[in-house]
Amino acid sequence: MSADRKDPPGAPAPAAATAASSAPGLNPWLARVMRGETSGPPIQSTLGGRVVAADPAAGTLESDYEGIAAFRNPAGQVQGGMLASMLDDVTALLVMATVAEGEHCATLNLNVSFLRPARPGPLRGRARIARRGRDVCHVHGELVQDGQVVASAVATCMVVRPRS
Amino acid sequence: MSADRKDPPGAPAPAAATAASSAPGLNPWLARVMRGETSGPPIQSTLGGRVVAADPAAGTLESDYEGIAAFRNPAGQVQGGMLASMLDDVTALLVMATVAEGEHCATLNLNVSFLRPARPGPLRGRARIARRGRDVCHVHGELVQDGQVVASAVATCMVVRPRS
Repeated sequence: MSADRKDPPGAPAPAAATAASSAPGLNPWLARVMRGETSGPPIQSTLGGRVVAADPAAGTLESDYEGIAAFRNPAGQVQGGMLASMLDDVTALLVMATVAEGEHCATLNLNVSFLRPARPGPLRGRARIARRGRDVCHVHGELVQDGQVVASAVATCMVVRPRS
Repeated sequence: MSADRKDPPGAPAPAAATAASSAPGLNPWLARVMRGETSGPPIQSTLGGRVVAADPAAGTLESDYEGIAAFRNPAGQVQGGMLASMLDDVTALLVMATVAEGEHCATLNLNVSFLRPARPGPLRGRARIARRGRDVCHVHGELVQDGQVVASAVATCMVVRPRS
């Protein structure tokens, strides 16, 4: 499934991602993933995911994805559920960007609207925080292909802290 | 990604699926997929999907899925977005089960609630039609693992007819 991927997980990060990994307040684990010092989770590799920008103070994050042939539906498009998987990834990574080391994000609900068909190929994911409370975070996400939004989502996420 | 799959796409269908493929009014394409006479779309293979029951008159469909290691999130669970992909599959397949040959299903919105963590392994998807209009179909879906619902969804789907 990863034959058409350009870089293996853990490959050296591009300069832009390395620069973005030093954003103030960025979660240390995500910063290491962005610098290529550690591999992201398996799902990130499966989706061809690569975080290209993260700004916890502004509440924004961008990540590239790759809609591969194995994701095609009967119509030959990228299956909507796989777009939902990318939107789940980009919105959860944004919450992860804002939490302290050792804290995590659990998504409670994901509401996805499919606006246009997505062809196999690259997609850019964008997420921004609508509201960040102490425990709950509402995040908006969208996926862009060829300059058009193909799918958008609202994620309701919970910040999970280590049990003390 | 498919190393831990038991059967390749197009493998002989189990007897139960073959029997279910003769349900009255079942879409001919889906019946052929269920009998193993034709391969399903690539996404079905990626998800380890196999339709095990379909009843267009009752408005129900069940499909098995396999949460593989490549779907894991940072917590080691099956990523929620991949559960969304399975729920998109099972709800869209139910709509497909009810349409005439040559007609298709386009999902407009998918709203997914993540109720419990899902571990890598088998999952059973279930879908039932809440309302089937001429052009729009509202479908409920759920994913079950170890006897518990791990995620549920409501899909808003549109029946797409060939242009005359």
